[in-house]
Amino acid sequence: MATTERVKQILSWYQSDNPGTLSKLHRMLMTGRLAGTGKMVILPVDQGFEHGPARSFAPNPEGYDPRYHFQLAIDAGCNAYAAPLGFIEAAAAEYAGQIPIILKVNNSDSLSKLGGGPISAVTSSVKEAVRLGCSAIGYTIYPASDARNEQYQDLRELTEEAKANGLAVVVWSYPRGTGVSKEGETAVDIAAYAAQIAAQLGAHVIKVKPPKDLVEHPEAKKVYEKYQIPTKTLPERVRHVIQSAFNGRRIVIFSGGEAKGTEEVLAEIKGIAEGGGFGSIMGRNAFQRPKAEALKLLEAVMKIYGAP
Amino acid sequence: MATTERVKQILSWYQSDNPGTLSKLHRMLMTGRLAGTGKMVILPVDQGFEHGPARSFAPNPEGYDPRYHFQLAIDAGCNAYAAPLGFIEAAAAEYAGQIPIILKVNNSDSLSKLGGGPISAVTSSVKEAVRLGCSAIGYTIYPASDARNEQYQDLRELTEEAKANGLAVVVWSYPRGTGVSKEGETAVDIAAYAAQIAAQLGAHVIKVKPPKDLVEHPEAKKVYEKYQIPTKTLPERVRHVIQSAFNGRRIVIFSGGEAKGTEEVLAEIKGIAEGGGFGSIMGRNAFQRPKAEALKLLEAVMKIYGAP
Amino acid sequence: MATTERVKQILSWYQSDNPGTLSKLHRMLMTGRLAGTGKMVILPVDQGFEHGPARSFAPNPEGYDPRYHFQLAIDAGCNAYAAPLGFIEAAAAEYAGQIPIILKVNNSDSLSKLGGGPISAVTSSVKEAVRLGCSAIGYTIYPASDARNEQYQDLRELTEEAKANGLAVVVWSYPRGTGVSKEGETAVDIAAYAAQIAAQLGAHVIKVKPPKDLVEHPEAKKVYEKYQIPTKTLPERVRHVIQSAFNGRRIVIFSGGEAKGTEEVLAEIKGIAEGGGFGSIMGRNAFQRPKAEALKLLEAVMKIYGAP
Amino acid sequence: MATTERVKQILSWYQSDNPGTLSKLHRMLMTGRLAGTGKMVILPVDQGFEHGPARSFAPNPEGYDPRYHFQLAIDAGCNAYAAPLGFIEAAAAEYAGQIPIILKVNNSDSLSKLGGGPISAVTSSVKEAVRLGCSAIGYTIYPASDARNEQYQDLRELTEEAKANGLAVVVWSYPRGTGVSKEGETAVDIAAYAAQIAAQLGAHVIKVKPPKDLVEHPEAKKVYEKYQIPTKTLPERVRHVIQSAFNGRRIVIFSGGEAKGTEEVLAEIKGIAEGGGFGSIMGRNAFQRPKAEALKLLEAVMKIYGAP
Amino acid sequence: MATTERVKQILSWYQSDNPGTLSKLHRMLMTGRLAGTGKMVILPVDQGFEHGPARSFAPNPEGYDPRYHFQLAIDAGCNAYAAPLGFIEAAAAEYAGQIPIILKVNNSDSLSKLGGGPISAVTSSVKEAVRLGCSAIGYTIYPASDARNEQYQDLRELTEEAKANGLAVVVWSYPRGTGVSKEGETAVDIAAYAAQIAAQLGAHVIKVKPPKDLVEHPEAKKVYEKYQIPTKTLPERVRHVIQSAFNGRRIVIFSGGEAKGTEEVLAEIKGIAEGGGFGSIMGRNAFQRPKAEALKLLEAVMKIYGAP
Repeated sequence: MATTERVKQILSWYQSDNPGTLSKLHRMLMTGRLAGTGKMVILPVDQGFEHGPARSFAPNPEGYDPRYHFQLAIDAGCNAYAAPLGFIEAAAAEYAGQIPIILKVNNSDSLSKLGGGPISAVTSSVKEAVRLGCSAIGYTIYPASDARNEQYQDLRELTEEAKANGLAVVVWSYPRGTGVSKEGETAVDIAAYAAQIAAQLGAHVIKVKPPKDLVEHPEAKKVYEKYQIPTKTLPERVRHVIQSAFNGRRIVIFSGGEAKGTEEVLAEIKGIAEGGGFGSIMGRNAFQRPKAEALKLLEAVMKIYGAP
Repeated sequence: MATTERVKQILSWYQSDNPGTLSKLHRMLMTGRLAGTGKMVILPVDQGFEHGPARSFAPNPEGYDPRYHFQLAIDAGCNAYAAPLGFIEAAAAEYAGQIPIILKVNNSDSLSKLGGGPISAVTSSVKEAVRLGCSAIGYTIYPASDARNEQYQDLRELTEEAKANGLAVVVWSYPRGTGVSKEGETAVDIAAYAAQIAAQLGAHVIKVKPPKDLVEHPEAKKVYEKYQIPTKTLPERVRHVIQSAFNGRRIVIFSGGEAKGTEEVLAEIKGIAEGGGFGSIMGRNAFQRPKAEALKLLEAVMKIYGAP
Repeated sequence: MATTERVKQILSWYQSDNPGTLSKLHRMLMTGRLAGTGKMVILPVDQGFEHGPARSFAPNPEGYDPRYHFQLAIDAGCNAYAAPLGFIEAAAAEYAGQIPIILKVNNSDSLSKLGGGPISAVTSSVKEAVRLGCSAIGYTIYPASDARNEQYQDLRELTEEAKANGLAVVVWSYPRGTGVSKEGETAVDIAAYAAQIAAQLGAHVIKVKPPKDLVEHPEAKKVYEKYQIPTKTLPERVRHVIQSAFNGRRIVIFSGGEAKGTEEVLAEIKGIAEGGGFGSIMGRNAFQRPKAEALKLLEAVMKIYGAP
Repeated sequence: MATTERVKQILSWYQSDNPGTLSKLHRMLMTGRLAGTGKMVILPVDQGFEHGPARSFAPNPEGYDPRYHFQLAIDAGCNAYAAPLGFIEAAAAEYAGQIPIILKVNNSDSLSKLGGGPISAVTSSVKEAVRLGCSAIGYTIYPASDARNEQYQDLRELTEEAKANGLAVVVWSYPRGTGVSKEGETAVDIAAYAAQIAAQLGAHVIKVKPPKDLVEHPEAKKVYEKYQIPTKTLPERVRHVIQSAFNGRRIVIFSGGEAKGTEEVLAEIKGIAEGGGFGSIMGRNAFQRPKAEALKLLEAVMKIYGAP
Repeated sequence: MATTERVKQILSWYQSDNPGTLSKLHRMLMTGRLAGTGKMVILPVDQGFEHGPARSFAPNPEGYDPRYHFQLAIDAGCNAYAAPLGFIEAAAAEYAGQIPIILKVNNSDSLSKLGGGPISAVTSSVKEAVRLGCSAIGYTIYPASDARNEQYQDLRELTEEAKANGLAVVVWSYPRGTGVSKEGETAVDIAAYAAQIAAQLGAHVIKVKPPKDLVEHPEAKKVYEKYQIPTKTLPERVRHVIQSAFNGRRIVIFSGGEAKGTEEVLAEIKGIAEGGGFGSIMGRNAFQRPKAEALKLLEAVMKIYGAP
């Protein structure tokens, strides 16, 4: 398939990057059912690390096997597959070249309390991503956390090294910690700010949570009211988040959160698509269903985003 | 335009620097409406990172787009444009060579509380500045902060590397933290001290806030009284700050702070210019106005500093 | 002895590794009485460091001599011998090439309290492992500890370096610290999670403790009940732990813990073997007995795992 | 001027150093009015950083200009000039080769409280000292501070690098912090200990404060009484400090502290000279006076130390 | 003198080391009055740093001069001389090649309180040891200290580098800190554990304090009673400590502690020698006496260890 005009346009936003990195973004945008549309659906499987194996894979035990997820991502026509080092290593040779891989280079588990704010451990590296043939690294930041500086600085080093090595950088930007209320973690001002920070830190692809109709910060509230920024509907809020990521010149995708019913999932996707979102990252809603169901759901999702 | 005598004189203050760095200072001094005057007006846009996207760009939504600020700085005839990594990367290729760029290598957001005193995260590097064709790096220190040593030491490494790579160094010196009262952050003794510290740390260009008629430290007070250092008027205070930066042999520019009315802005600039200030760094007062208004304001400012 | 089909199959799980690392795994799997069966019994002797010399070696004073353990591991037909730097260095030249060696690169003693959660000191390195002719490095993590990030990150660096140097990586995964109750350290959900984490961190061989019939985390409990994961018998629990390590595609072995009676030991081994465990790591139960007894016990253990 | 026997003798104490470092010590000992006498008077100007610009330079405003101090040190016939990075950089090219320079590589300001014990920030480096043509680096330690280890370790690295690069090392040794009373900071046992520590850390030139007739530590007191170490007069105390620095085989010089009257200064210098002190480091007492007065005072000081 | 069988035997315990390191051990074992006996008496002089100059050298003021100790160690026929960087540097060129030197690379002073448990500063390096022609580095660990991990990890790096550079490693192992009572610091179980830890960390020569007839840890106590480990007499306790250092296959020497009467010293040495101790490290008892007395005492000590 020839590179589409839309993909060429998107790549034009990243002209400061070297051809190596541009070719990885190109590959992710030109893979799967959504190839050429400028939209992306990514399968992420880090829940084994984050929530433990049984909570992640007992609902669909085939998921204990790392090969399952590679195959699922390929069969569903995803743009990329994202996972921690172990899951990637366990099947990267077997599936070499078959789907773009995002090595999730930091991870957290549910066992440790760590005393304070959220901070993930760096569990792999750009060097490992290169060795395993990955297209991108993935990194989670927690803006609003007391450990912000450590996180931004680790990301800075990884980003610089990734770009020098011709990889793309995907940033999960999840405000959490002493600087934000539990409720406010997905407030629209916070989500927009989270997207802005990831963009300013040099991310190529930004992942945030779908924002709620709530403005958390009092000083932001004044501005939202004064300039009448519309935040009532999900499309409006998504549009604002996209605007906040360099006026739409950065790829911003949305996560689905906890597994839920098919109707709910599709309704949310429609809102994201209508608001101009670049796609979704869908983990538990995919791999915790029986494979046939998962494929069906992912097909429906991709259709909403414009897959043929 | 041929290099003026004034610019040659200013460059003579930096003779210990290599020709690479001198050529970057030369370029900043010979660019824009103020080219050759020895004065500088710089457009900084780090508010998206520091205050969030809506608070920064909702007043003039064109500012969500990183290209807007490059174009604004060029159209207004600024000497340089300063921003964090993401904003620079998003347009550096398109505007390559059109305006000197200052990569702001540390940043803070309004989401995280960090538990203690102010300290920004290092979010980019000299290597990135070189890759992106920048003329200088910018770094904020908070003298009076408990994290002073960490900041000075990070700056030391960046400065050494920047100079070895032929870049200039711009230091934002903002006293803040347990060692100074809120009111005293812009006291004249504190502002003068802030300029001295940045100069001693090896900055080529120093940015401080316009000082108030107040002496914060009791031990300094005795000296100001004994030697009758004049601090009543803004020009007097600016003159003292300039003197405190190696007797005027370092470029010291002043920030404008929060957006305010045109009259107020211009009155302050006149005071700075009369006191011998080398120029201004003007962000929100510029990019939060409609472009035509911003251009008009910047033209007026530059005229005060001697633009033809 | 020719490489067996089972060993070839196991090596196929590690295809992302380089031939150097694969040859070390091959060597461990093709050494001793269990050579070719795909099972492993390893002799670890780090108790001198962990509990002190008298508590470790007074029961069988020959054990004070580092050569004793090398010879014991060889005579018993173990797959490998694991110990800290000093013990390895003291006999590695004499026994060079006679048995695969695992250099235990972090260690803890019983003298220091360290103020907080458990964390071992890094006491040797990949470079030392290479110098001493080792086949693998061994590293202990304490998931559930407040020092998790530091541990995972140290392991990450060591793992990357070990794999690049053609060594295998053995991870002792012992949940301990503020995130888990004392009783829960060996709960079946915790043990399964510990195995998953070690696998995700890139371990080739994982060592956990035999799990008890207890589910520690309330959120896990719901899942274990909903999906009726069987945990009544030791074989069931071992099977679940093995499944949690990439559906059986990582080598998981079990420790025996404190010295106990022969009957007890063998009963536990039978349970592990029946559940599909890949073997045991047996320290105090071996070296604290008189040598003849130890050899007899180890022979019995290996027979249970299928030694001829 | 031919190298004197005394200078040859002093250099013989530093035989373990490379010719590069020996030539820098030689240069400092063979420069200025005291050339060849084995004595040294050094002009240090770090007060702008340490106390702020007005408190430092308002008494003699020519001192705001970094060139003033270079010229003052040259005109007065000092052995060397010491200052932080900024002051050196601002004039090093203009005065290149005219006077030995000591780059003061760590500094503290009076703005930050830092929460705990005293510790300076490392503000420049050996690499910068080499770039700027310096003869030595200068570093302040605060023995008795809680941050001792960090300071000694930073100094260790700098010292190793300086010696490898053919530079000399000057250590300011000022006991201060939780381990010593305010009064005891200049007690004779503490000053002697401070000199010993600097010598053991590998300093070539040691700077301490003139000691008072007071013994701070009870355990030291017993020894001073038992062995009747004379500490009544300043010459006696200076002699003891010199002895404590390798029996007089290290260059130990003394600071003057706060600016005071000429008589007082000269009386103190006489005591130091009589006790065998190797010279003085004189800052505020020199640069805060009008230049003519400063030159007169420095001439008088040098005469006491034996200048022709 | 030809290498004796005993020395060849001792070197056989260190076969994993390279010829460079073996030659340094050989040199220490073949130097002085005890050459060839397999025993060692070392002169350590770090008290100037640890306790201050007057407390260390006032009893015998010749000791202020760094050359004194080199000459004393040579005249007394010691196997080696150990001191911090400054003392070594001050005479290493003059005494080059005349006696094996141990560079004591970490040190503590009596001025700083450091807030918490004991931890020395790293004050020199392997690179400096190589530059100064040393045979070994010396490092103090404080097992039972909260800073254990930092110490073991620093030692690990130094040890790896020392061995790669053909140097030997001497470890002072002094349990101290929150994990042990004051009285228990020299309990026999603690001393034996201290020797074991140093051996496991890769030390070639281990220095501990003579153990007392006391068992500190309750869990150790059970074992000492059950296995009736004899600890009544000093020879019994020394024998147990030697056994605890790899069954006598590591060189373990004992310190004398505070200066005391000649009879007391010699009685203790006899006990150590009878228990199979490899020798003594004797500082204050030697250099604080007049030289003639010191030489007589050291001769008597060496005779006990079998000097001809």
